[in-house]
Amino acid sequence: MADKTTIIVFSGDLDKAMASFIIANGAAAMGSEVTMFFTFWGLNILRKENAAHGKKHWMEKMFSAMMPKGPEKLGISKMNMGGLGAKMMKWAMRRKNVSTLPQLIEMAQEQGVKIVACTMSMDVLGIQAEELIDGIDFGGVATYLDEAYESKVNLFI
Amino acid sequence: MADKTTIIVFSGDLDKAMASFIIANGAAAMGSEVTMFFTFWGLNILRKENAAHGKKHWMEKMFSAMMPKGPEKLGISKMNMGGLGAKMMKWAMRRKNVSTLPQLIEMAQEQGVKIVACTMSMDVLGIQAEELIDGIDFGGVATYLDEAYESKVNLFI
Amino acid sequence: MADKTTIIVFSGDLDKAMASFIIANGAAAMGSEVTMFFTFWGLNILRKENAAHGKKHWMEKMFSAMMPKGPEKLGISKMNMGGLGAKMMKWAMRRKNVSTLPQLIEMAQEQGVKIVACTMSMDVLGIQAEELIDGIDFGGVATYLDEAYESKVNLFI
Repeated sequence: MADKTTIIVFSGDLDKAMASFIIANGAAAMGSEVTMFFTFWGLNILRKENAAHGKKHWMEKMFSAMMPKGPEKLGISKMNMGGLGAKMMKWAMRRKNVSTLPQLIEMAQEQGVKIVACTMSMDVLGIQAEELIDGIDFGGVATYLDEAYESKVNLFI
Repeated sequence: MADKTTIIVFSGDLDKAMASFIIANGAAAMGSEVTMFFTFWGLNILRKENAAHGKKHWMEKMFSAMMPKGPEKLGISKMNMGGLGAKMMKWAMRRKNVSTLPQLIEMAQEQGVKIVACTMSMDVLGIQAEELIDGIDFGGVATYLDEAYESKVNLFI
Repeated sequence: MADKTTIIVFSGDLDKAMASFIIANGAAAMGSEVTMFFTFWGLNILRKENAAHGKKHWMEKMFSAMMPKGPEKLGISKMNMGGLGAKMMKWAMRRKNVSTLPQLIEMAQEQGVKIVACTMSMDVLGIQAEELIDGIDFGGVATYLDEAYESKVNLFI
């Protein structure tokens, strides 16, 4: 099977991020070329926990501080209860031997899933390239659409 | 028209569940083969109100108790206000003769819409097969992708 | 490129509305025929700020008053903090010369993007045609599906 798959990851919630990567990894395992396009809150999934970065406006620093830094810090979209929900969800996943989000991300990169960070969102949120994980691409809406029109499965998560 | 339609129902909100089933029923009425794949919070839409079930870990019992049991118990995604918003929405729908969610689910099953519960999510949330409505299928991400690659319309709700 | 694009805009959040129109405008600029179908909270994006309207039930008046009237009044889906988040987001976008939502809507209409308001949702939420911006179409789920089955890219936002 050679059909392409393109997923926009707009959400920065742990549960939706897990769903995105489970679908992406499943598709890649079935032989599909997969592109994940990370935009808005979705960029937080790709953030390193402690990254050096260039100068920022104080407002960008505030944004940066308020948003979760990477997969370990994400909350869940419902019943998060100040992070308790996310902890419960991770406990349940560990118990059932479900891969963690960092493992799913690594697996995706090993399988050749193309991870693209939306440059416009980075610009608006004041996130710099060196703050994101290595081995990813950068692009705008035209990059996304080029992939989308070639894909059989298109999702917005 | 013979194009297939596949919808991932990730959300467990009343308004998004209604949208999912309205699209699914519309598509089925137009002759499309429709598959709805229920995952994460979406599983709550399929829960019976009072179902016998096997042994559960105390943490799974807690999850179970915290999540809405079936279509009558769902909240709406915005302005839910502790359930008042959902009540207002249901009042408005009744007044305009819009089918209720339980009616939409029944209609979907009568029209042959394939309802699939995500086994991985069931495992994580500690939901057992006998707690879900009858006449449904069970599967994982591969089941979903098989349908998705054959579908003209793919949605993530 | 002549592939069609169809987007359901279910969400009434500023960030998701921006994403919808950025994708729609990008697709139109690439020569795609684009249809945006606004349903549930998405209708709020299309509301005029002060529109005359016919008689309403008191409950419909209450709905109307509680929901944001048009693009300037929308909140963001995360970290809205009573509107402060939306203000910060708009500040950041202005600084980076990103078009505002009203500009994106105008641009879409100029490019011939077809904007359809869901009549069933209008009926349920008590929103009347004269309360929505000019130059749009009206339709139900069948209208949506007709477009969707002809589209290469289908998104639910």
